[in-house]
Amino acid sequence: MGLFSKDIKTMNDLFVHQLKDMYYAEKQITEALPKMMEKTTSPELKLGFQNHLAETNEQVKRLEMIFRMQGISLEEVTCPAIDGIIKEANVVSADVTDKSVLDAALVAAAQTVEHYEIARYGTLIAWAKELGRVDCVKILEQSLEEEKATDRKLTMLAENRINRAAA
Amino acid sequence: MGLFSKDIKTMNDLFVHQLKDMYYAEKQITEALPKMMEKTTSPELKLGFQNHLAETNEQVKRLEMIFRMQGISLEEVTCPAIDGIIKEANVVSADVTDKSVLDAALVAAAQTVEHYEIARYGTLIAWAKELGRVDCVKILEQSLEEEKATDRKLTMLAENRINRAAA
Repeated sequence: MGLFSKDIKTMNDLFVHQLKDMYYAEKQITEALPKMMEKTTSPELKLGFQNHLAETNEQVKRLEMIFRMQGISLEEVTCPAIDGIIKEANVVSADVTDKSVLDAALVAAAQTVEHYEIARYGTLIAWAKELGRVDCVKILEQSLEEEKATDRKLTMLAENRINRAAA
Repeated sequence: MGLFSKDIKTMNDLFVHQLKDMYYAEKQITEALPKMMEKTTSPELKLGFQNHLAETNEQVKRLEMIFRMQGISLEEVTCPAIDGIIKEANVVSADVTDKSVLDAALVAAAQTVEHYEIARYGTLIAWAKELGRVDCVKILEQSLEEEKATDRKLTMLAENRINRAAA
């Protein structure tokens, strides 16, 4: 989809656009997570990021499955939102000196990513339902549940250990 | 806070940085909402954005109250995440021709903004608790509850009317 090209005409076009946007976002996340793993000194957080990287790779494959089901080409659409979220995470974490404070910043950044994905998968599921694509709904719901579970785990990790160590 | 200036040394520094980032984000949202109101042709959605604009103005004031309580200057820190989220909303909505499809895209964009704020207020509350700032926690919780309520209203609006009209 080009800038101001007015090529989103139907709800299905919007759904497909959003799928391609999410495909780009998930791929950016698979690149960002290993860098976040390198930055943290918390073994628990490192493991959390590692597990979420494995999940994210599966989420990329699920989107590819939906592309095939929709009969559309495997294309990405640049997603300025995820680019901004990842840029902010890099800027803030580069600004932190203390290791425990850095861990708190990394958890916060990861939760922002999770919430972006929760919003997007929620929207994609609602649109797939409206379009009668029950087959897509089931696949997207798996990814949404994983994102929500990851966000809950990050909250627990932050509240129980990371923030306390930092404060 | 400058780029790579390493000036976040303590958990309190990180909390203050995040407050200034959120202050910038809320102000950007007060500028984005009137433009979204102009774009929609749905009276319900227009009213929803209008109500949320009033809430957002209150949220700005709450942050200013916390700044005074913390004894810090009223400063913004550029937030690449909200800039990216708003940019994406503009790019996608400029690409849509049909009015009902545009409404669906606008709701989705608004929900992405809400989820960004839910993540950020959640983090700020957790950090305020760790820092023993019970006074800040109470104020931030008001804004968090408003964001969650707005997200729920948008979901209902989308599922009951907007998406159906678009599909």
